[in-house]
Amino acid sequence: MLLGSTVIASAVAATAGFTGGYVSSGHDTNITGGELPAPENVGDAKTIGLLLFDGVEELDFAGPWEVFGAWAADFPQDKYKPVSISLASRQVRCAQGLDVVAQHTYEAAPPIDVLLVPGGKGWRTLVDQPESIAKIQKLTERVELVASVCTGALLLAKAGFLKNRRATTHWSALDTLTQLDSTIIVDRNSRYVDGGNYVTSSGVSAGVDMALYVVSKLGGPSRANDVAHALQYTHQWQL
Amino acid sequence: MLLGSTVIASAVAATAGFTGGYVSSGHDTNITGGELPAPENVGDAKTIGLLLFDGVEELDFAGPWEVFGAWAADFPQDKYKPVSISLASRQVRCAQGLDVVAQHTYEAAPPIDVLLVPGGKGWRTLVDQPESIAKIQKLTERVELVASVCTGALLLAKAGFLKNRRATTHWSALDTLTQLDSTIIVDRNSRYVDGGNYVTSSGVSAGVDMALYVVSKLGGPSRANDVAHALQYTHQWQL
Repeated sequence: MLLGSTVIASAVAATAGFTGGYVSSGHDTNITGGELPAPENVGDAKTIGLLLFDGVEELDFAGPWEVFGAWAADFPQDKYKPVSISLASRQVRCAQGLDVVAQHTYEAAPPIDVLLVPGGKGWRTLVDQPESIAKIQKLTERVELVASVCTGALLLAKAGFLKNRRATTHWSALDTLTQLDSTIIVDRNSRYVDGGNYVTSSGVSAGVDMALYVVSKLGGPSRANDVAHALQYTHQWQL
Repeated sequence: MLLGSTVIASAVAATAGFTGGYVSSGHDTNITGGELPAPENVGDAKTIGLLLFDGVEELDFAGPWEVFGAWAADFPQDKYKPVSISLASRQVRCAQGLDVVAQHTYEAAPPIDVLLVPGGKGWRTLVDQPESIAKIQKLTERVELVASVCTGALLLAKAGFLKNRRATTHWSALDTLTQLDSTIIVDRNSRYVDGGNYVTSSGVSAGVDMALYVVSKLGGPSRANDVAHALQYTHQWQL
């Protein structure tokens, strides 16, 4: 009953905040030609760093980006904000051909509080680059939570983070996860798995569910409901 | 029973095709600095044009982009391919701060067979720009199907396309849809609405469901199941 009331109050808050195209937060800057936009100032908000790299799968990062972006825009009082970080050059070509410009390179990234590693065919290149794996290890040094989507879990496995932890990945890569680290307790059925401070998700679209779960961990279940309502997301995820 | 067999066969086909990070189609080009990538050659495939503009909501276009991109990559024999088209400059700042580089400007766009108009707060600027509405009207002149996500329906309404049609939009904008054109039969409950050759969807995340429905219209229900399986999407959509 109390939960019911909380959900109703949250829905009202969401109505007053994000309104599907009316939301006034964000940017109106016109970007011209090939000029790179200026990196964002994240103020005193904690940062959720989304890692970008050539061959990253679009929805793997864009789903969580949307979840965290709507959360930050509609509920700035929670003080979390997504930032995009490229492992190499700021301009990234994604797996399905979309070109994205990251806000920061790895070298110029602000301190990260939560790291999200998406997947996509680019993982195959990164997994054999010790310097890229080292960058991921470095980025996670001070974070409170690490999340992966899809084959992003394979990069976390390579970096040695999932040792003896429960984890999952895209259905096509479950066996590879075991091959990379046989101590991982591979969950072949869950949409996402909370393995302590490492939350991994299954393939592509599951990143949205996992991101909402991360919002519930960091901001509470009622807030996750608010964000889902704003995005008109009709739950595959469960709190 | 026959349908059951078809779905199983499709799952096998998807396993052989898209494999969540193993997929070999696409691009490996490294893009450096502020240099704009070269526009894509779409060959003899029919084009699904996704419209981009400043203030477009990220998931509104990235969800359908992922669906159509995975379809094109895994089943090139179907000869449909997504292309991104910006109404103004190629570099676009999205509603939640993501920077994206469109493949084409409106002026240099290839012929479009299917047009998808996403939403996002940028619609409020566009709706008062006769030249932008005229561009949308021009882009739809030769298409076989027009789709919108979220508040993208408001732009279609302004362009006069939804007259006497069934349509929907984000929950927060349903009344605005009626205000823009009182002849629209507003569906307040459906995740997406097929109003003839105009398919509109509700808010943000519903674009994925709608895009899968479009795949089923253009490529058949079994193909839509293949793509959903590749993206590990566990159906909110119904064929």
